[in-house]
Amino acid sequence: MSRSIISLADIRDAAERIRPLVHRTPVLTSAFFDAMLGASVFFKCENLQRVGAFKLRGASNAIGLLSEEERRRGVVTHSSGNHGQAVALAARFAGIPAYVVMPRTAPGVKRAAVGGYGAEVVMCEPTLEARETTAAAVVARTGAAFVHPYNDPRIIAGQGTAALELVEDVGDLDVVLAPCGGGGLLSGTAVAVTELLPRAHVIGAEPAGADDARRSLEAGVIVPSISPRTIADALLTSLGELTFAIISDRVERIITASDEAIVSTMRLVWERMKIVIEPSSAVPLAALRESGLDVEGKRVGVIISGGNVDLGRLPWA
Amino acid sequence: MSRSIISLADIRDAAERIRPLVHRTPVLTSAFFDAMLGASVFFKCENLQRVGAFKLRGASNAIGLLSEEERRRGVVTHSSGNHGQAVALAARFAGIPAYVVMPRTAPGVKRAAVGGYGAEVVMCEPTLEARETTAAAVVARTGAAFVHPYNDPRIIAGQGTAALELVEDVGDLDVVLAPCGGGGLLSGTAVAVTELLPRAHVIGAEPAGADDARRSLEAGVIVPSISPRTIADALLTSLGELTFAIISDRVERIITASDEAIVSTMRLVWERMKIVIEPSSAVPLAALRESGLDVEGKRVGVIISGGNVDLGRLPWA
Repeated sequence: MSRSIISLADIRDAAERIRPLVHRTPVLTSAFFDAMLGASVFFKCENLQRVGAFKLRGASNAIGLLSEEERRRGVVTHSSGNHGQAVALAARFAGIPAYVVMPRTAPGVKRAAVGGYGAEVVMCEPTLEARETTAAAVVARTGAAFVHPYNDPRIIAGQGTAALELVEDVGDLDVVLAPCGGGGLLSGTAVAVTELLPRAHVIGAEPAGADDARRSLEAGVIVPSISPRTIADALLTSLGELTFAIISDRVERIITASDEAIVSTMRLVWERMKIVIEPSSAVPLAALRESGLDVEGKRVGVIISGGNVDLGRLPWA
Repeated sequence: MSRSIISLADIRDAAERIRPLVHRTPVLTSAFFDAMLGASVFFKCENLQRVGAFKLRGASNAIGLLSEEERRRGVVTHSSGNHGQAVALAARFAGIPAYVVMPRTAPGVKRAAVGGYGAEVVMCEPTLEARETTAAAVVARTGAAFVHPYNDPRIIAGQGTAALELVEDVGDLDVVLAPCGGGGLLSGTAVAVTELLPRAHVIGAEPAGADDARRSLEAGVIVPSISPRTIADALLTSLGELTFAIISDRVERIITASDEAIVSTMRLVWERMKIVIEPSSAVPLAALRESGLDVEGKRVGVIISGGNVDLGRLPWA
């Protein structure tokens, strides 16, 4: 049933559309992690993407698909994190206005980053309800188009371009893992991989303290993420209807990782691979280590989702 | 006069020889640093190389050039850092014995890394003299071939393969910068770049507290590095005769960076580019910022030399 939401053609179109705006990020390998897992692991490094996260892919695809009339009025979103920066930068590339609703508790550095890309930051109370009503008020005031962080076919198709590039670069894979928050990255990855490599398995990874997608798949309905507790703060959100439909259809299972494993895996990736990744990006590898999922002898793709970390406050310091 | 030491053909041969053993590291770009410098900067990321540094290139080239008889007896070197690990790993790839002389003050983690690659660690007092006499004793005992960390044409040719790949990947460059310790990386880079791109300028970069190469170029003779003081601990050594000859011939100038600029640039690279680099790797960029060298509108290559850092003791913590 997810077939009607997005197709491989939508992901290919997105890749064409966003090519001038995004980095084609490298795929790295590590003898250390290969030996640890007994597998050949290919890391698609979206931490090395502009704005430090895959989010620019979806945002620039969504903005690239706006009509001339919509472009004139601009875009609005709510986000305390990477999606807000991505929308701000994609809007600047397109030369259109952007409004980013942020909780007043968001770190100053994040507000400054969004403002630095030329977007208007609109502050609100730190609740989902306040975000939504504030964003709605901006829409009413400006006529700007709302760009949801994940529950939008344009966003899902854009996020799927990372896995498309991964498969283009390394060829056949047996398993592909991606972290799951709202599910935009995981569902885009799932469409790309299952269409390109019908025999491959797509597996989602969540923090054990925010395992609503795992519970949703088990229950067959969206289980909301209530009071999630994890260091992987990009993965707190619940699935949307569209991402749930795709994930139900195409994702084999969701595995989870404790915060302890997330932090130790994150540090191990920094040490051995010399890349800066945020806690969320360590979740697939940490969950692989903890879940005991057997990938012996397999070719495994892992989407490294982002690298936005406060270097003055590292979790092992 | 440096023409007789190594040629572009030696670097091309080295690239062929070491291809199965080394990563072809990615070249990254950063809109942030481009805007800061008003230039197009291409970062050749040898921090993402195996053992976390370019050193594996030279070591595996030198070992690949041993005779059958030499291979049987193995190799010896002295190093407290990346070269020792590189020789150990290259010897393991080749299936030959390796002996690495290390000062007894070297961190346990470095000894463990060398030993983990199957090399025999030989401890000595922490002086250059003790290292050399200990290495000589190992040669006398085992008949192993000594592999100097930089003053060896096979090492220089191997290190030059990073710049060869950089030029293959990005084409024309106006300026290429590399850090300078013993000068192996800088001299290999200089041969590759000046042969491939005769109009390009090669510039070395040193810590201000270890600027013996700069003083050597000015004096026209090797000025030894006496009591160097810098956080960039991979750049403490003096030039050798071979590296001095090549650098005198092909390097336009040496620019320097204060430790303060090295640390702030290092942090900025981690934050903006999401890669882990060691202090030595930040020296070219820090020196560019401090020296006022004008690269406006230029295409600039920077060799990022390594990423081996103790994550528990960061210089800004």
